[in-house]
Amino acid sequence: MKNIFLFFSLSSTLFSQNWDSLALKKIYNYYLTQSNCYNNLEFLTTKIGCRLSGSPQAEKAVYWAKKAMYAAGADTVILQPCMVPHWVRGQKEKCLIYSDKFKQPIALKAVALGSSSGTGNAGIKALVIEVKSFEELDQLGENNLKGKIVFYNVFFDQSLISTGNAYGGTVLYRAKGASCAARYGAVATVVRSMTSVADDEPHTGNMFYDTSLSKNKIPAFALSYKAADALSNALKNDPKTKLLLESHCQTLANVLSYNVVGQIFGSEKPDEYVVVGGHLDSWDLGQGAHDNGTGVVQSIEMLGMFKKLGMQPKHSIRAIAFMNEENGTAGGKAYAQSAADKKEKHLAALETDAGGFTPRGFGVDTTLGLYNRVVQWKKLFSPYLIDRFNIGGGGADLSALRNSGVPCIGFETDGQRYFDIHHTAQDTFDKVNKRELALSAAAIGALIYLLDLSY
Amino acid sequence: MKNIFLFFSLSSTLFSQNWDSLALKKIYNYYLTQSNCYNNLEFLTTKIGCRLSGSPQAEKAVYWAKKAMYAAGADTVILQPCMVPHWVRGQKEKCLIYSDKFKQPIALKAVALGSSSGTGNAGIKALVIEVKSFEELDQLGENNLKGKIVFYNVFFDQSLISTGNAYGGTVLYRAKGASCAARYGAVATVVRSMTSVADDEPHTGNMFYDTSLSKNKIPAFALSYKAADALSNALKNDPKTKLLLESHCQTLANVLSYNVVGQIFGSEKPDEYVVVGGHLDSWDLGQGAHDNGTGVVQSIEMLGMFKKLGMQPKHSIRAIAFMNEENGTAGGKAYAQSAADKKEKHLAALETDAGGFTPRGFGVDTTLGLYNRVVQWKKLFSPYLIDRFNIGGGGADLSALRNSGVPCIGFETDGQRYFDIHHTAQDTFDKVNKRELALSAAAIGALIYLLDLSY
Repeated sequence: MKNIFLFFSLSSTLFSQNWDSLALKKIYNYYLTQSNCYNNLEFLTTKIGCRLSGSPQAEKAVYWAKKAMYAAGADTVILQPCMVPHWVRGQKEKCLIYSDKFKQPIALKAVALGSSSGTGNAGIKALVIEVKSFEELDQLGENNLKGKIVFYNVFFDQSLISTGNAYGGTVLYRAKGASCAARYGAVATVVRSMTSVADDEPHTGNMFYDTSLSKNKIPAFALSYKAADALSNALKNDPKTKLLLESHCQTLANVLSYNVVGQIFGSEKPDEYVVVGGHLDSWDLGQGAHDNGTGVVQSIEMLGMFKKLGMQPKHSIRAIAFMNEENGTAGGKAYAQSAADKKEKHLAALETDAGGFTPRGFGVDTTLGLYNRVVQWKKLFSPYLIDRFNIGGGGADLSALRNSGVPCIGFETDGQRYFDIHHTAQDTFDKVNKRELALSAAAIGALIYLLDLSY
Repeated sequence: MKNIFLFFSLSSTLFSQNWDSLALKKIYNYYLTQSNCYNNLEFLTTKIGCRLSGSPQAEKAVYWAKKAMYAAGADTVILQPCMVPHWVRGQKEKCLIYSDKFKQPIALKAVALGSSSGTGNAGIKALVIEVKSFEELDQLGENNLKGKIVFYNVFFDQSLISTGNAYGGTVLYRAKGASCAARYGAVATVVRSMTSVADDEPHTGNMFYDTSLSKNKIPAFALSYKAADALSNALKNDPKTKLLLESHCQTLANVLSYNVVGQIFGSEKPDEYVVVGGHLDSWDLGQGAHDNGTGVVQSIEMLGMFKKLGMQPKHSIRAIAFMNEENGTAGGKAYAQSAADKKEKHLAALETDAGGFTPRGFGVDTTLGLYNRVVQWKKLFSPYLIDRFNIGGGGADLSALRNSGVPCIGFETDGQRYFDIHHTAQDTFDKVNKRELALSAAAIGALIYLLDLSY
């Protein structure tokens, strides 16, 4: 009996794996030959464009996403309200180096960081102190920094294999560098752009004022990689080099905005949810293509996959276009709050915010055994060149949901090119490869299919 | 005793793995922060440019490669002679659709295929027969094809995960389509470009005349993806659509050219070889960047790695810049012949001709246990996001060496974007990402380091 039982159990596992393998082939075929990802992305990025929270384009994007989710086959789409910050860049920034070594001031490529205060028309002209770390800043102290512009000249660690880790090693200078410098009386900060590529494109991104460090909200800028090189060289030749900075950004009153949540009802357990989300908002430079139009269209297409392939999920499946990931995560918090208020049972939540590059795998929470559940599918994904199943979790948008105990998944791509264009005017539709996008969307669709089936 | 022996054996394995792991970290650091790959590639592609066998640029490239190998640290560099074909494109091709449905003829983007005969000034104007396969061609036969232009309208199979496999499914129409059609009296052929991207860039590539099929060497062209669409549509609307084709290509007398072979002498077994090669020649459109400037600079940099890191290989290590991969593989054959003549013992040979994209792994021959040797290093490569160790082997340049019994390795990259630009004017330096190139070169360097150490 035992042997017969073993046989049946084994053959049923084999049957099930074979079945899943056929399903994945069908799913990939759909994504590679019929899906609407690329067209959706083209519309979102080139017809609507960049979509900073609170902007008219962000509002347009909300209504577009609703329509696109219905078109993909959502049974219902709701707009989930959240109040978002409304920061505006205003007219183009100026950044000039003054040095006795130059016949005339030299213009550098620079942008204001998101959430920064502006200098106004007067601008700020001051001597520059270059530092390589917060430790160096602290050592210099008020005596050396008062009235100066602090230049955080911190490079990506190119020796790291993950560009995300290199980003992680520098992003604090962007995020809290202004308040750290303001504590010592600095009047503004400039930071080397967070990138691995030595070009002349400044990278924006969020900063925040930590009023526990300083009540002075000094303006903060990012220099392009080349501009940072130029400034550093100028300072080597002339420590009395000055920088003139001018920005016109300001923070207006908060604005009512929305997450867009599209749903297909589950046939067996409609009150249990598997969700996938990317963020609809973007920075105000470029078109928010990889960051994160791709995540939005991947999420929408997951609805399309179930509908177009006639697969009815057992659980309710949601695609979420989160609002305000870039400068506040109001959308992520609103979704988690609503889920808690309604006592919704989330089986798993996947965040896709690593661009539309070739998929490499998933970072999965161990919570409630999710990692063990997912890693069993490693062999199923191998023919699709997806090999990496790491312990991990979702990103910023899922942070609140994860804190409430929902096991999360972060989608992982080949991110070598990501920080070349991240938060710049170059994050445009033409930087997204159609096949890479389709493959990334397919990987997500396939995982959601397997997850839904497995509970 | 047994247990103690086991302990020592285990700890020595662990020690060795740890040592290798540190060595790989050192190797990757070198490639990511100091290597000269990208600069070398820039020079080769933008200062020398495209390098079709027999062209003055191919000759320049030979002398450049010799210099670059010495600069990288080769102990010796030899030029290994081979006679190569000398095909020239001549003045730009013309391709015009004539149909009663059009007010005037419409120009299409087309290029002559490599090794094709030209039409001369008169051009060829004829009715067009569209086929989707050789079977369809054979069914149509001489009655339908005599005096016509055959249009092989065969698409990439987009549902395949490997673009290389999709290429493999269509490339025969390019390679032998002309002779197959000439057998039935066709006067010329056009083929849909071998690509997954729907753009207006025609892809050239080699064809050959199979005189066992037909002695008629009819001209052969490639249409861009969009041009192929336009021709197919025109034929649907008007079966009497004609095409005018004009090309001025010709095959001149063979030319003396060279493989460039740089070597570092082994400290223990200098008469045993581990070799790495890419091909120096390219098509005459674009700059031969991914195909295969990247393979050349990766190979050169492998010499640089040993020298700059002060690592003396046990066996002699060779970097080979092969000549004439694209239209004859004269270089690959000459190298294999020379190795046979000199009775050189080759432990392993790696071919890199998959572009400078993110590395994914290696396809390794099982010959002489090479696969089992390499696959044991899977864990060492995992931190570098290299996961795929398949049974495989080298490509065209190593074909002759492999036939002589040398176990070969093919380097595998993330090839999703490769066929977007393959053999086109778009295969230019700017399409190569610096980090992806460095990582691909590092993967090769690391494998060669381990191979050398392991024998």
